[in-house]
This record gives sequence, structure tokens and C-alpha cells, in this order.
Amino acid sequence: MKIHIINGPNLNLLGKREPDKYGFTSFEVFLKQLRSQFTEIQFEYFQSNIEGELIDEIQKADIASDGIIINPGGYTHTSVSIADAVAAAKIPVAEVLITNISAREEFRHKSLIGRYCSGTITGFGLDGYRLATEAILGIQERDKKLL
Amino acid sequence: MKIHIINGPNLNLLGKREPDKYGFTSFEVFLKQLRSQFTEIQFEYFQSNIEGELIDEIQKADIASDGIIINPGGYTHTSVSIADAVAAAKIPVAEVLITNISAREEFRHKSLIGRYCSGTITGFGLDGYRLATEAILGIQERDKKLL
Amino acid sequence: MKIHIINGPNLNLLGKREPDKYGFTSFEVFLKQLRSQFTEIQFEYFQSNIEGELIDEIQKADIASDGIIINPGGYTHTSVSIADAVAAAKIPVAEVLITNISAREEFRHKSLIGRYCSGTITGFGLDGYRLATEAILGIQERDKKLL
Amino acid sequence: MKIHIINGPNLNLLGKREPDKYGFTSFEVFLKQLRSQFTEIQFEYFQSNIEGELIDEIQKADIASDGIIINPGGYTHTSVSIADAVAAAKIPVAEVLITNISAREEFRHKSLIGRYCSGTITGFGLDGYRLATEAILGIQERDKKLL
Amino acid sequence: MKIHIINGPNLNLLGKREPDKYGFTSFEVFLKQLRSQFTEIQFEYFQSNIEGELIDEIQKADIASDGIIINPGGYTHTSVSIADAVAAAKIPVAEVLITNISAREEFRHKSLIGRYCSGTITGFGLDGYRLATEAILGIQERDKKLL
Amino acid sequence: MKIHIINGPNLNLLGKREPDKYGFTSFEVFLKQLRSQFTEIQFEYFQSNIEGELIDEIQKADIASDGIIINPGGYTHTSVSIADAVAAAKIPVAEVLITNISAREEFRHKSLIGRYCSGTITGFGLDGYRLATEAILGIQERDKKLL
Amino acid sequence: MKIHIINGPNLNLLGKREPDKYGFTSFEVFLKQLRSQFTEIQFEYFQSNIEGELIDEIQKADIASDGIIINPGGYTHTSVSIADAVAAAKIPVAEVLITNISAREEFRHKSLIGRYCSGTITGFGLDGYRLATEAILGIQERDKKLL
Amino acid sequence: MKIHIINGPNLNLLGKREPDKYGFTSFEVFLKQLRSQFTEIQFEYFQSNIEGELIDEIQKADIASDGIIINPGGYTHTSVSIADAVAAAKIPVAEVLITNISAREEFRHKSLIGRYCSGTITGFGLDGYRLATEAILGIQERDKKLL
Amino acid sequence: MKIHIINGPNLNLLGKREPDKYGFTSFEVFLKQLRSQFTEIQFEYFQSNIEGELIDEIQKADIASDGIIINPGGYTHTSVSIADAVAAAKIPVAEVLITNISAREEFRHKSLIGRYCSGTITGFGLDGYRLATEAILGIQERDKKLL
Amino acid sequence: MKIHIINGPNLNLLGKREPDKYGFTSFEVFLKQLRSQFTEIQFEYFQSNIEGELIDEIQKADIASDGIIINPGGYTHTSVSIADAVAAAKIPVAEVLITNISAREEFRHKSLIGRYCSGTITGFGLDGYRLATEAILGIQERDKKLL
Amino acid sequence: MKIHIINGPNLNLLGKREPDKYGFTSFEVFLKQLRSQFTEIQFEYFQSNIEGELIDEIQKADIASDGIIINPGGYTHTSVSIADAVAAAKIPVAEVLITNISAREEFRHKSLIGRYCSGTITGFGLDGYRLATEAILGIQERDKKLL
Amino acid sequence: MKIHIINGPNLNLLGKREPDKYGFTSFEVFLKQLRSQFTEIQFEYFQSNIEGELIDEIQKADIASDGIIINPGGYTHTSVSIADAVAAAKIPVAEVLITNISAREEFRHKSLIGRYCSGTITGFGLDGYRLATEAILGIQERDKKLL
Repeated sequence: MKIHIINGPNLNLLGKREPDKYGFTSFEVFLKQLRSQFTEIQFEYFQSNIEGELIDEIQKADIASDGIIINPGGYTHTSVSIADAVAAAKIPVAEVLITNISAREEFRHKSLIGRYCSGTITGFGLDGYRLATEAILGIQERDKKLL
Repeated sequence: MKIHIINGPNLNLLGKREPDKYGFTSFEVFLKQLRSQFTEIQFEYFQSNIEGELIDEIQKADIASDGIIINPGGYTHTSVSIADAVAAAKIPVAEVLITNISAREEFRHKSLIGRYCSGTITGFGLDGYRLATEAILGIQERDKKLL
Repeated sequence: MKIHIINGPNLNLLGKREPDKYGFTSFEVFLKQLRSQFTEIQFEYFQSNIEGELIDEIQKADIASDGIIINPGGYTHTSVSIADAVAAAKIPVAEVLITNISAREEFRHKSLIGRYCSGTITGFGLDGYRLATEAILGIQERDKKLL
Repeated sequence: MKIHIINGPNLNLLGKREPDKYGFTSFEVFLKQLRSQFTEIQFEYFQSNIEGELIDEIQKADIASDGIIINPGGYTHTSVSIADAVAAAKIPVAEVLITNISAREEFRHKSLIGRYCSGTITGFGLDGYRLATEAILGIQERDKKLL
Repeated sequence: MKIHIINGPNLNLLGKREPDKYGFTSFEVFLKQLRSQFTEIQFEYFQSNIEGELIDEIQKADIASDGIIINPGGYTHTSVSIADAVAAAKIPVAEVLITNISAREEFRHKSLIGRYCSGTITGFGLDGYRLATEAILGIQERDKKLL
Repeated sequence: MKIHIINGPNLNLLGKREPDKYGFTSFEVFLKQLRSQFTEIQFEYFQSNIEGELIDEIQKADIASDGIIINPGGYTHTSVSIADAVAAAKIPVAEVLITNISAREEFRHKSLIGRYCSGTITGFGLDGYRLATEAILGIQERDKKLL
Repeated sequence: MKIHIINGPNLNLLGKREPDKYGFTSFEVFLKQLRSQFTEIQFEYFQSNIEGELIDEIQKADIASDGIIINPGGYTHTSVSIADAVAAAKIPVAEVLITNISAREEFRHKSLIGRYCSGTITGFGLDGYRLATEAILGIQERDKKLL
Repeated sequence: MKIHIINGPNLNLLGKREPDKYGFTSFEVFLKQLRSQFTEIQFEYFQSNIEGELIDEIQKADIASDGIIINPGGYTHTSVSIADAVAAAKIPVAEVLITNISAREEFRHKSLIGRYCSGTITGFGLDGYRLATEAILGIQERDKKLL
Repeated sequence: MKIHIINGPNLNLLGKREPDKYGFTSFEVFLKQLRSQFTEIQFEYFQSNIEGELIDEIQKADIASDGIIINPGGYTHTSVSIADAVAAAKIPVAEVLITNISAREEFRHKSLIGRYCSGTITGFGLDGYRLATEAILGIQERDKKLL
Repeated sequence: MKIHIINGPNLNLLGKREPDKYGFTSFEVFLKQLRSQFTEIQFEYFQSNIEGELIDEIQKADIASDGIIINPGGYTHTSVSIADAVAAAKIPVAEVLITNISAREEFRHKSLIGRYCSGTITGFGLDGYRLATEAILGIQERDKKLL
Repeated sequence: MKIHIINGPNLNLLGKREPDKYGFTSFEVFLKQLRSQFTEIQFEYFQSNIEGELIDEIQKADIASDGIIINPGGYTHTSVSIADAVAAAKIPVAEVLITNISAREEFRHKSLIGRYCSGTITGFGLDGYRLATEAILGIQERDKKLL
Repeated sequence: MKIHIINGPNLNLLGKREPDKYGFTSFEVFLKQLRSQFTEIQFEYFQSNIEGELIDEIQKADIASDGIIINPGGYTHTSVSIADAVAAAKIPVAEVLITNISAREEFRHKSLIGRYCSGTITGFGLDGYRLATEAILGIQERDKKLL
């Protein structure tokens, strides 16, 4: 089984900047740990600061993968285009936001992308990626039962 | 270890009404399943349609439990008072919403309570309770490391 | 045939307070009169100031009755939870508001509950309950024809 | 006794178009039925797509009739001028809307005219005209008692 | 010299209805008085409840007259089309509103038409028509000087 | 084949007023030219400043014609009633706006009617009517293929 | 003389939680002190987290007491129903808010209840209850003079 | 008879700056002309850029004069305090605005002061002061008739 | 001990104008009474209609006094500058509003100054100044205990 | 003659995804058909998911081409930068939107780019590109006449 | 060459209050330093808490000076009148705001005055006055080149 | 010392397009001039139309440079992601906008990025880059003093 993790802008800075907000762990270190927790899953990882490259990757993942975990970073609140790409995807998409956005600035409260995802996990830090993985597994188990 | 699950108004109808939106499983059946998955955790369950009784229960749980999973139902969008009770709690509180609220009516988009929770899980159906349990376990593991 | 009349907060004061706005008749006196007009109907009457008790009663009525007449009082404009309970009901629900809310304060103009009712009758005073009874009879006659 | 029924734009299409929304009955057929239910009342019927003609008719009815039942159609939400005509009328005016407007598009939620009517009946289909007739009878009975 | 007075919906009721708001004088009586004050001016008078007829009249007046005094009644706040007709007129247009609209309901505060008029006179009752006549005379005197 | 062109308020002034905004050509001259371009199509032309007459015409065209080209003029932004008439039409309706409304005043940005049309053509001047004709032909060709 | 103090949700936590915001004194301790300052006044004290119970108590106090001091807690900003109960009360009602709400989150700025109270005291901590007692005494003195 | 003309900020610049917007005439020159037109009226003139001095002058005029003509300049849109002073005045107050404010920037559309004036004259340039004088004369004539 | 009372625009009219709203007592008379109630306090009194003079006085009081009671009149809702002056003050500032502003016009609901005051007392008439004096005494007692 | 067709994000999925909304035809197939209809025109085709690459292409096309047909996809509603690029272009730009955006979600109603285009064609499916080609031809014919 | 520096309300407190926000330097000390940096420029300095006096000074400076540096303090967000005075000035006006207003309270985000200035410098502390001086020099150099 | 100048979309067109708005100088020519004014500073220059590449460059500059001057072009008003990148930067960031945005279209008024910059310079044309350089020098001088 294969899951794409797609991280948006500035998430390459994780662990290097503002550790009080985002923690001390870089995403590479965290990913290693995540892979050791779910050995049966093959995680593809992609990060870009460019909106359109994230769209490209969602389109690719939709063909190659069984599920997408996306953290759209700042595009969460502004990108109709990523929202469209997610809406067009046929595999389950779980949105992860590291911080609790409803406790931050007003312009971060509205999510354009969430409405097209299977669900959203927000506020639990990097652990949100683990929960999202669990969520995608849960969706697949449920779908199997329906067959 | 002990976790309180607190469900708000109309969630006693789960499995009986609108199964296309909320599924066919009653919460009681689901709870049995959840307990079998996390045998080391003692789940207290409380449901009420009355706003103030939910506040009472949050206050009780804060003394008696290690974590709260709350689904405030329709109060999610209107209750400043439940939000205050959550803000006053010292144990981690994970919010669960069964459906994807940002894909429903406008007046369901704003959450007053989420900003005082540790995090929120939305859209993954009843499986959200399992994910919230995982999330609280994750918070406790992280806190242990910090000691 | 059985109809539940469910009155929300402060409607127990009818006839005692602000008679220029709400009239001089108490609801008990009015109810007697209503029963004498519709002798073939069994009216159940419930009043509470507590939001959740109104939800409880809607859920009960949905099982025990053929129709609901609800006047949600001040909850008309704020209660997503009562709205959810009404949305889940399978029997016809007619909303009655005694005064003409669109001629009062701005915050009374928006109704959250009305959209899930069969229909709404507003501004005709206590006579609105008689009209609502007629409306429910009308719905049942129409449904019979469709069978 | 005499009641004017004044129907606004597109209501001449009743029964011919969108029967899933407005039913299969034309207003002419319905009117015959209404007259047979209230044989003591003389119903005047007027329909126009033109805003000002509706105003003209309200002014005429106010002199010639004992009550007005108005369904302003699309003008419900935009016509300050019809609202002014209703406000100037001395006889009771009951507003009828066939569908439940608060369950439709946002721009249909606001009613400019309702605040000057005696009351409003919304969502009960064509049966709303019967209820409005009852409502006007109720007002007149109440007024007689006050004399 | 010739001035068109164009009155919108419900202004035919002046002097007959709501005299506390609009005074006891009918417009016909007032017009006689106005003509006696400005004997050198030929006043054309037109009233209609129909939006499009007011537009027709503005177009006619623009060819036949030296100035327009318009009281759009309830269309003041809703008619983009009358606003367009006024904007297209080449002769001066003075807007008169009998009551002080900014002291009335919220939805009466916004004027769509005023921005295309030479100016607006509001709140001075029927005397506003005399002032508007003076205003048009003032514009023409000013224009003569510029030649 | 037959197409109704329905023009709203002030469009009878085309070519006479504000030529910098609307061009020097009157609609009659333009229509001759349009007919010469599409000799196989019979164009019916109707213009009125009266909202309700436009509704009447839409209802007539819906029975007599194969398509409607409508330019609602100032009613574009305010008429729920024309929107309802368009929504009830069974033949394709193409909306044409001569100027680019999103580059004009704020209150011209919102279109109430467009959402019920097949599509909208805006900003291309009188040529928009030719494009709308092409659009209706395109729709009919597509529909033929589906048969 | 008798005054009802009615405290809303979470105010039972006073002195136990968030002392930096609400101080270290429990309401019970404070009440003792208040009683010793106004020995001629009999204070009835009621606290509930349940909106409807607060309405019940206001209705009771209105019959049994000479004045009400109310701190509606989180319901301050959301409860039309408590506002209605206050509006129906015939004895003076003084609203007390412990913190300065206009210096907190946006959704705490609007008070629905204040407009029906005699007056409001905000920001002076627990001392606000003493000031409210003084205020009610002031109102009664003024009323006596008027007799 | 005595009328106070009270001009607000920047109106001392009339005739010196932006003549395309405000004309070439200084207010002193215009005032001479106005006095020659109404020889029976004694005009007091006051101009200040200071909000509070305008309030002082309104209070003085209310004692010493028979009417006030006020052009509040930029304070039109922001001064609740001048509005309060006008509301407290017992003599008629006519508001004059030189330009057509609804055709200018958004923040100039709302007038706080107008609602407390007898009426407003806007858009007719300096001639507005003559019209306002006529308006005050009209009010006094009307009041005489009522005695 | 010394307290500055600073009254804003139009408050010099107290007792002379609109006694139904503001009472029959002039502030001078009331002040005499206030001084007799608090003989240990030296009250400085300042009133001005000019925004900037109120700021000057706040700055002076902050050096010379132990507390400020401010009633900013119409500036309550518009003055960011007075708000800044209050924010910069080191002594306690109590805001007093004579009427219940949330029961008046919409534009009076927002207070810009209150958020920087210790607290606000609204709706209790002139008695509010006595309560504010009590409030400042309460603050000082509390501060003494903290030393 | 040369026209650039510039398609924004997710339009590479045309014909593959959501055929009920966007049809079964891929853009490549459609383009072939378009070229066969306008053999005298050389169509350049460019698609990208990346906002900035679309800006690059607009800048290139402005030098190399005679007209641009742009479908900005999800950027229609969010990209001030593409709007700036279009505003800077000297050749005609026709905007095409495949679906009727005013009948979709609220956040799709506002177009930032349309105001800088020659015109917009919306709702006619892929046929919109043919109409846009006709529109550009129309503009060029008109411009030739002006020379 | 001569530049007027005009400081608004509370800026006389610079260096005395809230040094963490505004720094430790008083404006007098800073001004000395500024004069030593630009010895060829004669700086006139004016500070007032009174809105109208700032307008007076702008009008004076416009005659006597070559440029204005204005920091309107709290009036930045509320004064249409100062905005009008700036708009009427013929010499360049540079606005300086010491703190970064878009990072502060919501009501400080909107500037009414900025749109009429040559430009604005915000967030660089007292150094903003030096930059504004440079900016005015830059404008004059540019203007010289154009001659 | 090293400063990065980062220019956003369409700024590569400077000097080529719309010279009345942006001037006749290309940025390359201007940069040469800037370098000759500040010979001790090494300017790195980067321009891109792609949002994500601007983020990449900010991240690079934060490591390699002593300060950033950014003109985000159209992204100023829409990019939460660039705002996040600026917020994460440790070196001073000065925002430059060539034109006075508050005097342009509504949607250009809000800046998302400015709140995370040291300060903003707007409206002074290309000279803004010189002022921004001065501003960064000023920050560094101030920081040196603090050491």
C-alpha cells in the first residue's frame, strides 16, 4: 500500500525555524519515525513552495497511490486551484494542519481545501500525520467491508 | 488511564436517523468496538441534549479523567459557554465532528469551541473517535518525554 | 390523531406579561379552546425554558405523534441543535411565531429552525396555533391522496 | 365578505412548470376548490407580472375589500414599493409564500414586505392560501370581539 | 420654460393615507399652489406605480422639457434601471424625497438614483418640490452665465 | 429556427446616448445586420422598460421560440422575478451584457439572472448578440448529437 | 429588601481556575463579604450552567425579589431567550461582567442581554457585584422620590 | 429674523482650492450675494476646522437664532458629537452639502448628522445655501399656519 | 485623594435639554451632591466639546490625580485618539455612560474607548458617576492589599 | 493570424475527470476540431498548473500573438497577479469559463481577472473557446474599420 | 528649503510613555538629531491633540513650506477632515506611522488619510521621519528633472 | 554588507508598460543607479512571476543576506504563503510598493505580508527602494547600538 505525503510552502523549514510553534523535529527525521511505525505502507514524500507543483503532484498521486496526506501550508486559505485538484482526486485525501488554525489570525480561519477532503486533522502537531495515516487506513478498511 | 467521551445534542439518534449522513451504527455498538481496540483505556460515556449538562460533565471529567473527547453537535457553532468550560479544563480535549462541516451549510462553518481544544478531527465519521483516542495517547506520550 | 405542541422559553408567561405584545390569554386557556375546535385531535402540550429538553421532546414526539407544532421562542434565532432535531424528525413540523419577527430587532430576523420545518406561520398571534393545526391536517390529507 | 388574492410574477405558470417545486395544480383549479370551501366569501383574483400593477391592485383592494392575501413572488425580496403599498393599506394583509424560502438561495431569505403584513404563511404549498383565508377570518373575529 | 415632475409608486395616495408622515395635502392641491408660485414655468405632472413607465417618462421629458423633478418613491432604493435612465438624461434632474430617509429603516438609507442626479433634497416635506424648482432655476441661471 | 431577442430598460436609447459607452449604432440598424448574417434564423425582437413585460415576453418566447437572447439591462442586478421566469424556461437562454460589468460600479457586479441562463457573454459590445446566437446554435447542435 | 444574584455557566469555577483572569476568591467567600457590607439586604444566590434554569430563576426572582444582579457568563453573547426573560421582568436588573469584554475576543463584544437591563457594569472584577448592589439601591431611592 | 450659517473644516478654502470641485467663488463673496437676496434675514456666519467649536456654535445658535444652516464638511461622516448637538437643538437645522456625496468615495456615503436635521440639500453647489434658507423660511411659514 | 471627572461633548447641556433621556439635574447640581457623599475625595471637573482638549485633560489628570472618571459623550464611538490617551494613562480610568447605549442606534453600540478603561458603567443615569467613584475606591483598596 | 489559448490549473484533466461537469472531450481532441473550424488562424496552446508560468505565457503571447483566450481555472477568483498581467497586455484578451460560475459555490462568484479582459464568456462549455475566437475576430474587424 | 513636521494626538508623550512600543527618545531630542542630519533643511515642528488645529497647520504649511511630514496619530483612522485638508494641499505630503499598524488592532488597519498623501512610511519607528525627509527630497529632485 | 531585492510578478515589465503608472525606467537601469548610490552594499536581485520561487528566494536570502527588500506585486494582497516565509525570516524585511495602493481598487487595499515586515514604504515610486535601503541601514545602526 502506498500513501503520498504532500507538504506545501515553508514546511521545508520545519525544525529549523519557530520551534515554539512547529517543534524541533525536521520533517525528514519525523518521516523516518513514521515509516518505522507503519512498515507495511510505502510513503512517497513531496514538498514544494510552488502552488502549481503541488497540483501536479496531487494529479500524479491520484494515479500512483492509495491515499494522499496533504498539508497545504499557507495555500490552505487561498488556493481554489489546489481545492479543485483535490476535488478531482478519486483516492481518499486527508488534510493535516500542524497548528490549531482557529486560534490564530482571522485570515487563517477559512479553509478552501478542507471541504473536498475526506476529513481534516488540526492542532495535534506532527502527530497529525500519524493520525491521518490511521484515518486513511480506516477508510480503506471501511471500503473493503462494503465490497 | 481514563478518557471521557462527551456527545452533544441529537447524537443519541446515531444509527437510527439519516444513516446516509451519519451511518448505520449506533454509538453504543461503536463504543463496544472502541473499547475492544483500546483495552488499557477506561472510557466514560456521556450524552446530553442540554448545553449546561455538557458543561457540568466537562467540569467533572476535568477532575476525574486524563482526557476528553467531545463532539458538541449543534453547540459547536453557538456555545460560548461550552467553549469557556473547555478553555478552563486542564486535561487535553480533542474535538470530533463526524461530518465535514465546511462542506455543509454556512452557519456550520464557524467553530467556537475548537480554538480551545488541543486539536480537531473532522469528516472521518465515527472513526474520528478512534483517531481522537490516538491523539490523546500521542499527547500523553509527548508530555512524558518532556518530563 | 395526535399533535405535539412544543413551546420554548418564556412562553409560560403568556397572558401574564407584556399583554400588548402577546395578548391577555394564557396558553392553558387558549389550549382548552383549541381542543374544543379540533375534538378529533389529541393535543400533547409541553413547555420548557431548557433548550435540550425541547430537543428531547421533539425526539419523543417523532415516535409518539402525527405532527409537531413548535414555537421555539428565543431559540428560533440561535439553536442549531433544535434545528438538527427538527431536521431528523419524520413527521410534519409546523413552526409558529406569535409576533411578526421581521418587524422587530435585527437579531430576530434570521430563523435557523424554519428551514427544516414543513412551513412557518408568523404574526397572527395565538391564532397561529389553530392555523398550524389546519396546516398539519392539510399535509396529511395531501399525503393520503398520494397513497 | 370579500377577500382579494393578489399573485405576483410567474405565478400564472403554476401547475404548468416545475411541478416538483410548485405542484401540478393550476391556480384556477385551486381557486375553484377554495371557493367551494369558503362559500360565504367572495374571492377577487388578480395576477400580474408587473410590480406597479400589483401596487395599483393593493390600492384598489384596500377600498373594495375586507382583506388581502398576497403572494408577491420574486418581488418579495426586492420591492420596497409594494411594501409601502401594503403599509398604507388599512385592511388586514396576509402574505403567502408557496415554498419554504429559508431553505432556498440566500437572496430569497430576506422579505421586505412581510414586516408590513399582519402575518406570513410560508412553506405549506397552495394550502397556504386556505390558511391565509382562515387567518383573515380569525383577525376579523378578534376585531369584532374588541368592539 | 418647462419642468417635468415625475412621482413614483404610492405617491398618488398623498393626503389620503398616513397624514402624520406625509401631510394632509393631496399632490393635486399642492401642484395648483406650486403653479401659482412659479407662473413662468409650465409644469408637466406624471405619476405611476410602474417602474418602466417612469423610465419611459424620463426619456420623454429629456426631449420635451428643461428639467426633471423626480421622487422615485420606493424605487429610490432598488432601481438600477431608473438610475440608468437618469444617468442618460441631458437636462438637470433634481431628486426630492418627502421624508428624511436616513431617519427611517436601514433598507431606505441607500439611494441608487441620487448619484446620477444634479442634487437631492430630502426631509422638507412637499416644500421640497418648491426647493427643487428653485434648484433647477439656479442651475439654468448658472449655465446662462457660462455661455 | 426562431430566436427571441429581449432587451431590458434603456436599451431603446442605444446609439442615441453615451456612444462612448454603448457605441453609435442603434439596435434597429444592428438587428438588420444580424439578420443578414444568420439568414436561416427568424429573429423576434422585443424591448421594454417594464420588468413585468419582460417576464411576459420570456413566457411567450418559451412557447413560440427555439432560444432566447436576453439583455436585462438594469434589472440584471435586482430582478428575482426575471430570474424566476428564466429558470422556468425550457429553451436555452443566453445572457448578453454590452459592457464589462465587473469593471463598473460595485452594485453592477452581482448578477441574479445569470445563474439560470445557459451562459453569459459580457463585454464584447453589440457583437455579444452575434456570439449569443452562435452559442444557441452550438447548444442545439450538441443536443442533436445526443439524440 | 431582597436581591437575587444569578450567575451563569462556569462561574462555579471562580477562584479555582484561571485566577489571573478571574482572581483567587471563590464566589461563596465573596458572597459572605458582600452580605457583611449590605446587612439590610437579603441576597438569594443561584448558579447554573443550564440556560433554561437561568430563565426559570429570573422568572422566579421577578415575583419574589426587589432586584436582580445577573452575570450570564458565556450566554451573554448568545442567548436571545435570557434576554427575553430579562425584558419581561418588572424589577430592576443589573448586568455584571467580571472582565472587560471589549478587550477580549471579537465574539465576546456583542451583548444580547444588556439592552434589556437597567444598566451594565463591566471590567471591575468581583467588585462589580458590590457596584451593582449600589446601583439597584440607587434605582430604588430614585423611584421612591418619584412617588 | 436670524439664521446661523455654520461651516465645518476646509470650507475656508472655498474658491481658493480645487475650483473644479467647489467653484471659483469664496464663501465671503457668496455670502454678500446671499444677504442681498434675503434682506429681511440677518445671517450670522461661523467657520471652524475644530469639531468641538462647531458644537459650541450650534449650542449658541440654538439660543440666539431662528434657524441653522450647517455644512459639517468632513465631519458629516464621522461626528456623533455634532449629531448629538443638532439633535438637542430646538430650532430647525438644514444640512447643506456642496457636492453630491453619493457619487464620491465609499466612506463619504454615510451621513451621521442628517438624520437629526429637518432636511438635507446635497449636490447643488453653493446654491444649496440659498435653497436651505428657502427651506427654513418654508418651515417657519408652515409652523405659523399651525398656530 | 483626587479624582478627575472629564465630560465630553454636549454634556454641558445636562438638565437643560431632553430631560426624558438625561434627567432634570444639571451636572453642577449633581456634582455638589456627589462631593457631599464623598467628602474625603477632591473632585476636579472638566467639560469640553473639543476632542483634543479632552486628551489634554487626560494627560494632565494622569500626572495630578489618583483616578479618572470619563464620559466621552459622542466621542465614545469614534475617537481612537482619546482611546490612545486612556491607554497611555497609568491611573485607573472608569468610563461612565448615562444611557444604555446598546438600546439605542446601531452606530452607538461600538465603544472604542472602553477596552482601555479599567471598566465601564452604563445605563444607570447620573448615578453612574457615584458608582464609578465607588469602583475607583475599590481598585485602590485592592491595590493597597497587594502591596 | 495567431491566437494564444492559455489554460490554467487542472484543465489538463478535461475529459478524464468529472465528465458530468466538464464533458467527455479532452482539450487536445477539441483543439483539433477548433483548428479545423478556423483554418486561417494559428492556435498556440499552453497549459500550466503554475500561476507564474501563466503570467510568463501572457507576457510572451502579448509580443508574439494577435489575441489571447484565457481560462484561468481556479486562479480566476484569487490571482491579482494574473489580472495585472492581463491588464498590461496590449492585444485583446477573451476570458472563457467552461461552467456557469454564478451557479456554483460562493467563492467562485467573484472574478478578479475579468475586469481587465475585453470580455468574458461563461457557461457554454468547450464551445466557449469557439465563441471567444469569434469574439477576437469581431474585435479585429471593428478595429480595422476604425483605421 | 523648508519642511513642516505635523504630529497628531498623544505624540507629545513620545519617550515618556510605553517605551517598549514607541522607544525612549522624546520627539524634541530626536528632532535635534534630525536637524543635524539635514542641515540644509529648515524644519518647522507642530504638535496638537486637536483635530482642527492640525487642519489649520496643514493649510498654513501649504503656503509657507516645501513639504509636509504628517503623523496623524489616532486621527489616521477616523478623520475625513484631515484627509480633505491633505487632498487640498499642493506641496508633497509624506505620512509617517511609527508602529506597524497592520500588526495591531483591526480598527487601526484602515487609513483614511494615506490615499491623499504622496506616500506612506510605516513601521520603522522614529527613523520613519528621516526616511520621509529623504522621500520629499526625492520628489523634489524628480520634479526638477521634469522642468 | 548584502541586501536581497526580491521583485514579484509583472515587475519585469517596469519601464516597458503603463509608464504613466510605473515610470519609464526599467528596473535594471534603476538598479545600476541604486548601486552607485550605495557602493558599500552588495545588492542581489531576483525577479519571478512564480509565488513559490519568491518563497524559495526569501529562504535563501535569509541565510545569505543582511536584509531583504521585497515588492510582492500582485501577491501582496493574496499570498499567505509569502507572508509565512517573511514571518520565518530572521533578517529585517522592508516592503516596497511603487504605487499608493489605498488610492487604487478595493481588493488592493489589504496587505497580508506587511504585518510580518519591519515596515512598509508605499507610493514613492522606484525611489521607495532607495528609502528601503536607508531603512535597513537604520535598523542595523540601531541594532549595533543595542549591543
